[in-house]
Amino acid sequence: MLEKNSILREWFEKQGEEYAHEEDIPLQELKEGLEKGSIVLLLNPNHKGVKPTLIGQPASIKVNANLGTSPFLCQMELELSKLKSALKAGTHTIMDLSTGGDLDEIRKRFLDASPVPLGTVPIYSVAQRYLSKGRDVALISEDEILEEIEKQALQGVDFMTLHCGVTRRAAESAKGERVLGIVSRGGSILARWMEVNNRENPLLTRFEDILGICKRYNVVISLGDGLRPGAIEDAGDGAQWEEVIVLGELAQRAKEEGVQVMIEGPGHVPLQMVVPQIKTMKRICHNAPLYVLGPLTTDIAAGYDHIAGAIGGALAAYAGADFLCYVTPAEHLTLPNENDVYQGVVASLIAAHSAEVALGYERARRRNREISVARRDLDWERITALALDREIVKRRRERFASKEECAMCGEFCAVKMLR
Amino acid sequence: MLEKNSILREWFEKQGEEYAHEEDIPLQELKEGLEKGSIVLLLNPNHKGVKPTLIGQPASIKVNANLGTSPFLCQMELELSKLKSALKAGTHTIMDLSTGGDLDEIRKRFLDASPVPLGTVPIYSVAQRYLSKGRDVALISEDEILEEIEKQALQGVDFMTLHCGVTRRAAESAKGERVLGIVSRGGSILARWMEVNNRENPLLTRFEDILGICKRYNVVISLGDGLRPGAIEDAGDGAQWEEVIVLGELAQRAKEEGVQVMIEGPGHVPLQMVVPQIKTMKRICHNAPLYVLGPLTTDIAAGYDHIAGAIGGALAAYAGADFLCYVTPAEHLTLPNENDVYQGVVASLIAAHSAEVALGYERARRRNREISVARRDLDWERITALALDREIVKRRRERFASKEECAMCGEFCAVKMLR
Repeated sequence: MLEKNSILREWFEKQGEEYAHEEDIPLQELKEGLEKGSIVLLLNPNHKGVKPTLIGQPASIKVNANLGTSPFLCQMELELSKLKSALKAGTHTIMDLSTGGDLDEIRKRFLDASPVPLGTVPIYSVAQRYLSKGRDVALISEDEILEEIEKQALQGVDFMTLHCGVTRRAAESAKGERVLGIVSRGGSILARWMEVNNRENPLLTRFEDILGICKRYNVVISLGDGLRPGAIEDAGDGAQWEEVIVLGELAQRAKEEGVQVMIEGPGHVPLQMVVPQIKTMKRICHNAPLYVLGPLTTDIAAGYDHIAGAIGGALAAYAGADFLCYVTPAEHLTLPNENDVYQGVVASLIAAHSAEVALGYERARRRNREISVARRDLDWERITALALDREIVKRRRERFASKEECAMCGEFCAVKMLR
Repeated sequence: MLEKNSILREWFEKQGEEYAHEEDIPLQELKEGLEKGSIVLLLNPNHKGVKPTLIGQPASIKVNANLGTSPFLCQMELELSKLKSALKAGTHTIMDLSTGGDLDEIRKRFLDASPVPLGTVPIYSVAQRYLSKGRDVALISEDEILEEIEKQALQGVDFMTLHCGVTRRAAESAKGERVLGIVSRGGSILARWMEVNNRENPLLTRFEDILGICKRYNVVISLGDGLRPGAIEDAGDGAQWEEVIVLGELAQRAKEEGVQVMIEGPGHVPLQMVVPQIKTMKRICHNAPLYVLGPLTTDIAAGYDHIAGAIGGALAAYAGADFLCYVTPAEHLTLPNENDVYQGVVASLIAAHSAEVALGYERARRRNREISVARRDLDWERITALALDREIVKRRRERFASKEECAMCGEFCAVKMLR
């Protein structure tokens, strides 16, 4: 990969050592990971000021926050405020999933404002030109899609979700046999396009052209899971796996061309299937970094899907997932607000940290150890400094901050009892 | 068990069939579970109006909410308001863990107000008489503890946490070798008592007397985990397991006397240890119902420990835990308020439902299936009716309730796209 991808190679020569240290992994391991494609680097040189970011274990597990307008809710100031909220909570990347308003301008504003890598789903922008005028997305031309990808790459987008693995056969199967059919917006647009035009997925047939564009800007392709299950009942069916198999093949082709790829994962998945699904996906996709949405381990938790997503996300990361896309409390209901965004990032960070501890990441374990020592010492300053969210610790302690114990136990404090 | 416990036997004859139906298990399986003690019935006949409640798989997984005052925060109206909040969220039981104010009166008010079984930790009430006057808990007399247990049993308490398994040897080991020592309030009180008096745990030495009291009122003994790990770093050490082994022995002795028992579990446990710990505890304790606090899979999530607890709780229940004690966002910081209580119960219910689905509970799976069908039909009335929290679904949809799609996708709705 390093030989074929000059942007990656130059970065590695310049910053590899610094990042190996930052990620707490040996330089050689980082190099091998990049070489084999089990680690990818998010960095489009056209995204000015971006912090290049590594995705792929044994690098630390990363978290993404989805932002962006919708046709019903489109306010750029709100979006920038959500971006601030995501960054404050500690997100490692963002995606601009806008579907309402002037999408080129919105993307530009996000790119300017975001110090972390930014991802998009280019088919949304193409589809918006049709949907906003009530026109059928089946009228989209193949070239239009490629032009959109190139335009966004030139703008500086660091990674793009491209649903290249939604084949006609698999889409038909998903539409016909599932309780909830296709729940991916990109997947459903392509499924409609294929059905009406009686042709194969243009993102698949034009994959070589896409690789050419992505290579020039080091855009990391996030091979989208257009057929991910949107219901526990649909998890693990043939349509889902057929797409994964295609993604595994495309991942190899991309790597051969020096284009970095990640694989997107489910979705709604029952608890007992999370670990086997993740392990199987990693195997089929030759250990390319796995980027999971949730997974959600129940369908009934609307309003609290960040919690269902944390359950699935922790298990998924422990089983090998590398990159957790947050789910917010607004999922399935409405567009998230600033607070939803914050809650979503925090929930994913808890999942990521739980997995890192379980996987033996020394830095994560050390932080647990240190906060536990601070608890033994009732050293609230240190407890606060080591907490995931310092502000909430301070705020909730405020009323009793002068006390050595917390207000739950008072003089019943177990730690004090045995001094 | 049914032969030796007349309260249980009478209940089974009268309501066994109805409950077998409600729990969706064959009557014979319920009977065998009660007989062997893998299922227990929370029901003290002195708790007027209580809904008898079954704990133990394959009965549905239950959730408990801890309520009660602390020395720093003691307002009965607030407590009753928290009780309402817990019931509204769907808790199956509550515990009155009050340590501030007139504890007898508070307990009476909780018992009067609670339609669900109520648990307590009697050692708290005994200790309060000392701690509130600045006196050493080591001065507590053995008889005083037994009298307190009897008084509370007479009042109608349905289950009691009794830390009978905290042996001198194990307590010394926990105090000496751990990062965070003993974090259970009951455990630390007993450890201090044993150290100063140079005697074994009175809850252990007087276990026969305790069984006599509990049998008369069908108080279910929740054998407390006074040496549970309070830090990921301490999970799974010798002290923890030594207590479990003692609890396993005591559970058998209790069953022989016709006294129902549950076993309490950890605590702070790293993700990879949750399943093996739960399976080992169930084995050592002869399959007595397991009542877990969390477990929390990270130490750094103060302010969001309900999420860390949902991750651990879902896995634990999937591995065999029967009863999930909630953890609220206030854990490690302060006493929970009404909203914390609500959030805590919901998070535990998400964990319980995720586990039930994974374990193949037909009723849980059906609910997932039905809500997924409602999503396919964009039938918001039905989606709302099937959601864990109907109010939040309504509230968050409010602004766009006239629309068929949700405000996240608008006309990009994947479901609509393919109609």
